Amino acid sequence: MTQESSQVAPRYLTGDKAGLQEFLAKFDVFLFDCDGVLWSGDHLFPGTVETLELLRNNGKQVVFVTNNSTKSRADYRKKLEGLGIPSTVEEIFSSSYSSSIYISRILQLPENKRKVYVIGETGIEQELRSENVPFIGGTDPAYRRDVTPADYKKIAAGDESIIDPEVGVVLVGLDFHMNYLKIALAYHYIKRGAVFLATNIDSTLPNSGTLFPGAGSMSAPLIMMLNKEPVALGKPSQAMMDSIEGKFKFDRNRACMVGDRANTDIRFGLEGKLGGTLGVLTGVSSKEDFVSGDVRPHAYLDKLSDLLDSE
Amino acid sequence: MTQESSQVAPRYLTGDKAGLQEFLAKFDVFLFDCDGVLWSGDHLFPGTVETLELLRNNGKQVVFVTNNSTKSRADYRKKLEGLGIPSTVEEIFSSSYSSSIYISRILQLPENKRKVYVIGETGIEQELRSENVPFIGGTDPAYRRDVTPADYKKIAAGDESIIDPEVGVVLVGLDFHMNYLKIALAYHYIKRGAVFLATNIDSTLPNSGTLFPGAGSMSAPLIMMLNKEPVALGKPSQAMMDSIEGKFKFDRNRACMVGDRANTDIRFGLEGKLGGTLGVLTGVSSKEDFVSGDVRPHAYLDKLSDLLDSE
Repeated sequence: MTQESSQVAPRYLTGDKAGLQEFLAKFDVFLFDCDGVLWSGDHLFPGTVETLELLRNNGKQVVFVTNNSTKSRADYRKKLEGLGIPSTVEEIFSSSYSSSIYISRILQLPENKRKVYVIGETGIEQELRSENVPFIGGTDPAYRRDVTPADYKKIAAGDESIIDPEVGVVLVGLDFHMNYLKIALAYHYIKRGAVFLATNIDSTLPNSGTLFPGAGSMSAPLIMMLNKEPVALGKPSQAMMDSIEGKFKFDRNRACMVGDRANTDIRFGLEGKLGGTLGVLTGVSSKEDFVSGDVRPHAYLDKLSDLLDSE
Repeated sequence: MTQESSQVAPRYLTGDKAGLQEFLAKFDVFLFDCDGVLWSGDHLFPGTVETLELLRNNGKQVVFVTNNSTKSRADYRKKLEGLGIPSTVEEIFSSSYSSSIYISRILQLPENKRKVYVIGETGIEQELRSENVPFIGGTDPAYRRDVTPADYKKIAAGDESIIDPEVGVVLVGLDFHMNYLKIALAYHYIKRGAVFLATNIDSTLPNSGTLFPGAGSMSAPLIMMLNKEPVALGKPSQAMMDSIEGKFKFDRNRACMVGDRANTDIRFGLEGKLGGTLGVLTGVSSKEDFVSGDVRPHAYLDKLSDLLDSE
């Protein structure tokens, strides 16, 4: 249980028109977790579009916060559009963008150690490019191959044909092409002093109604080998909250995090000392979790579109 | 610190002829860790061959115990031969063999759940075949490919074109061709009830004077996703000791484990309640570790060939 978690029972606002109005009036900014709140998989929840419209019409800033590192903000906007949700790139905050900002604006890297070795897909690459951060690895086909006997010797010797001396950061995100060579290289860069970062450490990734390996599973071998945790940039890491605040310059007291998972979304808002947290029951956490769990939101709803009843 | 670890300072036997004779007389069986004891990398230590000959000439049973799962016993014998060490397949005990015995003789699998899904290389496959254990995965090229959108749907649905309903065991060893699909399949088999086994859980693998991902790194994503540890069959797991005893039918009081690593080799012997443990200083652990660490051998030597001074 964290220090910040609320020990008061959360307020149930579904059908409570006065309560909803009072709650909404407290905030200027709403941060949204997406899957499990706005949609599930490829299924948009009824009323999602109207609810976002209501908030925008009332002058609220809407921010979509996602740990998905495989997509850039532009990719993610297309995904929202595909589901019928109007949005702008500026409203989207992803763990790949958060990581890029952290590297370019917060980490103070020596002049000759500015390159990032990436384990991950194109979303990370696009966001690193948008911040002018040089990188290697990622989707480069040269890394999508088996390890060879020559690799062991070259890696051990720090041969510059395989070990780039300018790498000062290892950034690990979800990589559908993970392999032995990539893990070996990441290990050696970190042993040589590179900073160990992860876009996020969700162990699993929901797909097709079940779970698959998530970004955390890419970091897991390195954590075991190094006996060291990465700095994680996705929810519930406060590095992500700091990045969001840095960009939107909002008053934390006037901001509310909306999510379906107590342990990530709600924790993220509570530890970030936001004025409010709002749970919805259309995803992972149950009423039980919200009402008597270790991490409790300030309020909860059966579903996001219950906010429409404030009208 | 384990209950079994010796709190008495170990006896230093280098150059102590009477002490060496007394020590050797206590044992009929010597279990040897290999790398760091008999050789280092590709370098055979001087006197190794003569020392093994001395033991054999005095009627001692010699057993080579290795956590290397990528080689079968036959492969490993070839490796010993290549280094100039005479041996027989019967003297070799590897984690792949130990795993195969555990599956075929100890696990009581239902009739329709006898297949093993393997993450690993040919050594495991050869040993499973030698015990007539059916398996899928392993070095099959069908598993050395990228994950596709169709895979997610089929895996989620338990489609028999990709999920074999007869799989009752997932066995994870060192796999130089690990990938996203293999981890996803292992996860789903275990979620469907398969037993989670690991040949060994060494996080790293020594090569070319440095470290690379070991078998434990292949289990790490699964451990994180499942929040569950595998049953590990390599040192220091006592499942391996039980298998060795099952095969050689020795008296544990008359057996001695020889190794360079306090935390694996010496612990393996102590927890197995062998009559003796002998540390050597030609590998990982230092004199400091042996003399005042948490896990202490009964005796130690500068190098294995110091045993020749008993003559």
